[in-house]
Amino acid sequence: VSKAELSPPRGTRDFYPEDLRLRSWLFERFREVAHRFGFEEVDAPLVEHAELYQRKAGEEIVDQLYHFQLHDRHLALRPELTPSLARMVMARQGALRLPLRWFAIPQCWRYERMTRGRRREHYQWNMDVWGEPDVTAEAELIAALFAATDALGLAPGEVRLRVNHRRLLEETVRPRLGGRDEAFGPLCVVLDKLDKIGAEAVLEQLADPAGPVGLSRPVAEELVAGLAARGLPEAAKGAAPGSPALAELTRLFELLDAYGLADRVDYDASVVRGLAYYTGIVFEARDAAGSLRAVAGGGRYDRLLESLGGRALPAVGFGFGDAVIHELLEERGKLPALPRRLDAVVYPFTEAERSAAVQLAQTLRARGESVELVLGSVKPKRALADADRAGAVRIYLLGPDERARGVVKVRELASGREHDEALPKAPA
Amino acid sequence: VSKAELSPPRGTRDFYPEDLRLRSWLFERFREVAHRFGFEEVDAPLVEHAELYQRKAGEEIVDQLYHFQLHDRHLALRPELTPSLARMVMARQGALRLPLRWFAIPQCWRYERMTRGRRREHYQWNMDVWGEPDVTAEAELIAALFAATDALGLAPGEVRLRVNHRRLLEETVRPRLGGRDEAFGPLCVVLDKLDKIGAEAVLEQLADPAGPVGLSRPVAEELVAGLAARGLPEAAKGAAPGSPALAELTRLFELLDAYGLADRVDYDASVVRGLAYYTGIVFEARDAAGSLRAVAGGGRYDRLLESLGGRALPAVGFGFGDAVIHELLEERGKLPALPRRLDAVVYPFTEAERSAAVQLAQTLRARGESVELVLGSVKPKRALADADRAGAVRIYLLGPDERARGVVKVRELASGREHDEALPKAPA
Repeated sequence: VSKAELSPPRGTRDFYPEDLRLRSWLFERFREVAHRFGFEEVDAPLVEHAELYQRKAGEEIVDQLYHFQLHDRHLALRPELTPSLARMVMARQGALRLPLRWFAIPQCWRYERMTRGRRREHYQWNMDVWGEPDVTAEAELIAALFAATDALGLAPGEVRLRVNHRRLLEETVRPRLGGRDEAFGPLCVVLDKLDKIGAEAVLEQLADPAGPVGLSRPVAEELVAGLAARGLPEAAKGAAPGSPALAELTRLFELLDAYGLADRVDYDASVVRGLAYYTGIVFEARDAAGSLRAVAGGGRYDRLLESLGGRALPAVGFGFGDAVIHELLEERGKLPALPRRLDAVVYPFTEAERSAAVQLAQTLRARGESVELVLGSVKPKRALADADRAGAVRIYLLGPDERARGVVKVRELASGREHDEALPKAPA
Repeated sequence: VSKAELSPPRGTRDFYPEDLRLRSWLFERFREVAHRFGFEEVDAPLVEHAELYQRKAGEEIVDQLYHFQLHDRHLALRPELTPSLARMVMARQGALRLPLRWFAIPQCWRYERMTRGRRREHYQWNMDVWGEPDVTAEAELIAALFAATDALGLAPGEVRLRVNHRRLLEETVRPRLGGRDEAFGPLCVVLDKLDKIGAEAVLEQLADPAGPVGLSRPVAEELVAGLAARGLPEAAKGAAPGSPALAELTRLFELLDAYGLADRVDYDASVVRGLAYYTGIVFEARDAAGSLRAVAGGGRYDRLLESLGGRALPAVGFGFGDAVIHELLEERGKLPALPRRLDAVVYPFTEAERSAAVQLAQTLRARGESVELVLGSVKPKRALADADRAGAVRIYLLGPDERARGVVKVRELASGREHDEALPKAPA
């Protein structure tokens, strides 16, 4: 086996115990928040039929699909969970209690060029509501998102949410598409690249006559200029009279006010999100300085089920990745110290005390304690130093003398205090 | 998207909430037992370099590799975790506190023909001790395995462990291999198929002059006949004088006696296990009737690290899958009922009570309660029936009258009892 093959594949990670503790801590915060909001956990296969992701909008997530042929099947590692959820909802449509509140923490894969420590896999907390057309669902989801950043120890000002409505954009653009409604998804995908590729490149793609959008250059310019709007009053200026999208946005801010969250959220016309299937409100959470990528992002996708051949069902959700939140917590010095928790080490001085040590360890474990039994023959000094290194609270020292007296010497490792305890009786 | 693409790929599963609750229940039992035994959780990438699994022993696990080419890389979905763990240990060899006690619950993949409901993915609880040559490690692992079957609610007699020692077999076989020591691994892999393909097919493979084992037919027959030995006294009859392997087996039974587990374990010469890398004691746990496949299996693999180019490090571990234990618990009527836990539903009669309902829900959630907020406009009767269907403990009924009085009506759904509670104050 070559050296290269002894590293995790490029873009993937090993989780040593300290890494796994951090991952579990993060996942537990996600689970706990989801549970408080009445969401139920689900999961789907990591490998799906690649066809489930085949959309023609030029989305990055689809271009970077981790896909392969295997025994005449075209398969893919899931790049996102939403299509799998749609599949699951469709399979039981009619039998499920609506609105569904589902969450999951799937590992997702994308095959992208490796830059700046980006990885090819990440975990993503997904929260989705299926079957609720009202913007009350968006408000609940945004509240859950902030409940998570709170639970992770971030201060209210450290993460901000920017929100927009795809139909506000659509109201402006649709008359210019000349009936080619299918161009709207790809148009959003292009607009979403503004930060990454800059205005000129976006304009070129929008106005490319051979591209999927095909706007005239002046219309494209007007559109990009419109992305500068910030705040609801600005949104209102650009909106059509009596715009339902504007009304929904306004209502969302009223709802967020009831949650005490309105001051963490901004209207921002440049938020479009890079998935073609969003149909309504879209949002993304970022660190307040905006120096990192999005911590979380989501939106409403009322037509996804139809596009897969199911009956129409409104839906809205978000994904919250494990990578950027890790960077942010690290940058803020808020990654928790998560030492190993080990209650006791049980140490038989010689093999003559092995049986008694086994019974003692099993007795402590039956009480729910975390107990390491020393497995080899080591010197007392080494056993003590090693228990210290493991971070154990206590060590049970069981020598010939103790065993003869039916006791064990217990040493608290922090204080060095010692006392004797009676040995448990051997099981009948 | 075609109908076939709307099912999970063949051999994979969707986890709806009730399935996920069962999976979480199982994983929590595994975690809790591992924690009591002082094991730390780790994980490794699901995708590895296929080369990590390339062994020439004809193992089923390698023949069924889920592998593919992607951008000039030959990758595989892990069929088992042990090679990844070996990689992780090697990368930090010298810096890790030994013996290492690691556990993991990876999803593993194998591309096999689908028969009798076998799946292409399963989760497998792995427990491994690295750095301990003594059979005390085997004893701890076997104790942890039984602690898990106990924790899952199985009675002591319902799962039995059969144990053997590869070196007992080796002592007999080595003189017959004519110096071709590398044939021993493949020989074990062939012997392991006895149950599946029968004695005649095993004999043919062992005695195939073109195969990797190449025994003479009489030697092969003698070998297969030897697999019938049961119980330590029988093992002793077949063993070489002063056999270290027999001494280890004897000591293992003494240790298991100290754990109170000796009566759940049998010596069985037919247990060989299908992985080529085992070097010492091997074991497998099955339902007492032996009607299902193995619940768990494992053994000592002291030379795996060397075979990958690392420094020698003794190791022993087991894997405990989620599929067979599920079948066994189901068959025994011991799958737990795991209803959804939902503390409360908060129901605003009209949108005028929406803000107060939001604040009430958030207040209950801040206390750690699991709370569904009714998101749409529904009739009271429907809201009550729906809260009942969700299994909620209470519903908070918030109508115009209640809100005017600054209260909410609380109805316990099981008893139908109602009382009023003061509404929480709006946040400042």
